[in-house]
Amino acid sequence: MNLLLLEEKDFIGPDTAAVSGRRFDHIKRVLKAKTGSRLSCGVVNGKMGTACITSFNADCLEMEVRLDAAPPKPLPLTLVLALPRPKMLKRIMESVTSLGVKEIYLVNSWRVEKSFWKSPVLERASLERYFRLGLEQGKDTMMPALYQKRFFSKFVREELPVIGQDSLCLTAHPKTAIVCPTSVNERTTLVIGPEGGFIDLEVKTLEAAGFDTVSIGQRILKVETATTYLISRLFT
Amino acid sequence: MNLLLLEEKDFIGPDTAAVSGRRFDHIKRVLKAKTGSRLSCGVVNGKMGTACITSFNADCLEMEVRLDAAPPKPLPLTLVLALPRPKMLKRIMESVTSLGVKEIYLVNSWRVEKSFWKSPVLERASLERYFRLGLEQGKDTMMPALYQKRFFSKFVREELPVIGQDSLCLTAHPKTAIVCPTSVNERTTLVIGPEGGFIDLEVKTLEAAGFDTVSIGQRILKVETATTYLISRLFT
Repeated sequence: MNLLLLEEKDFIGPDTAAVSGRRFDHIKRVLKAKTGSRLSCGVVNGKMGTACITSFNADCLEMEVRLDAAPPKPLPLTLVLALPRPKMLKRIMESVTSLGVKEIYLVNSWRVEKSFWKSPVLERASLERYFRLGLEQGKDTMMPALYQKRFFSKFVREELPVIGQDSLCLTAHPKTAIVCPTSVNERTTLVIGPEGGFIDLEVKTLEAAGFDTVSIGQRILKVETATTYLISRLFT
Repeated sequence: MNLLLLEEKDFIGPDTAAVSGRRFDHIKRVLKAKTGSRLSCGVVNGKMGTACITSFNADCLEMEVRLDAAPPKPLPLTLVLALPRPKMLKRIMESVTSLGVKEIYLVNSWRVEKSFWKSPVLERASLERYFRLGLEQGKDTMMPALYQKRFFSKFVREELPVIGQDSLCLTAHPKTAIVCPTSVNERTTLVIGPEGGFIDLEVKTLEAAGFDTVSIGQRILKVETATTYLISRLFT
């Protein structure tokens, strides 16, 4: 936890907040903070600043909060991800949030197992838990928006061209010799397939929607590794 | 499994191999291969090529193997990592192997929990399992070399300057404004700290050994994410 993420409901006065539960435990046991300690903090979808601990009780602490800084700039990236298996989804949601991604589409595809769509990880409260962990890690306050799309063709044909408008549109796919560009640093819509990759028909549907197929070279990476790798490559 | 990794002992003839166990299960259930199917294959620390399945039995399969290609070029990177917690270590070993890293040092540091050094993951057979998974993922045959260094100061003062000779020497550390260079593409020795980072004294010891301290910008990433992010940034 590099940033203590506060919510409006944590505030007990205009500049005073009280925290218990998971965040309290972390501040006490891992950060070993005491009365008078200062922590980086921020309000969900709001400003960032400093919290000074004013009292430390058995199961909660109070702090004086000063919010005077803007959160870091979001990445100009829309990430479209074939739904990964639940365990990997958790880690990817946390890591891409820590990297500054603010717009995520989870889509179906031929090689996505149907059971993945029934995972409780996809419930809003669960996803928000991983977003929060990512924001606390990356020192940010702005929650990503996430959309779930169960119909690949309909989504790619009707919605994706609008989503990708005025942006560089890329599909990451191992089976091409064209290598993903580096240091793009402009608005990008990046589509990443499932383990095993998109099937040819899906790649063609994406190409028809204006998405160039690019690879990361000779090696094939797990979705989790590829996602971080591509984000790092595109934005420097 | 994007590449079937064979060992010398799998060969039952000069160009014939037999495979059972985990690899057999994967080929049968996940890849759904049949007699006549062709698979990418390679021999540990040797050449790559194609395996054609000649017979499929209840618990093993035989194949004709043709080895005619060299494995991909290794990354010109020596990775020095403060020992991560065992669960994360497994994933990092697999992902950096899939990325082409061939030289890894696991080192102690102030914020590494002592118990991590007792983890069975550190045993050679266990580490090799994750290297194998990484090679199968990234389509490579060359096993990384891994060294474990329990004494930070001694290692950094006496061994690291020799290891880093004729290479770009970097320590990734969040608390600096100097941002890690991109597309270096030359021999690099990269040191990455533990969760929570190196302590100041450790950073100074590394600086005295010739290692420049660089960050990845305003955001702070988990070691796992940072490792992939930095490798992608340095080598394009």
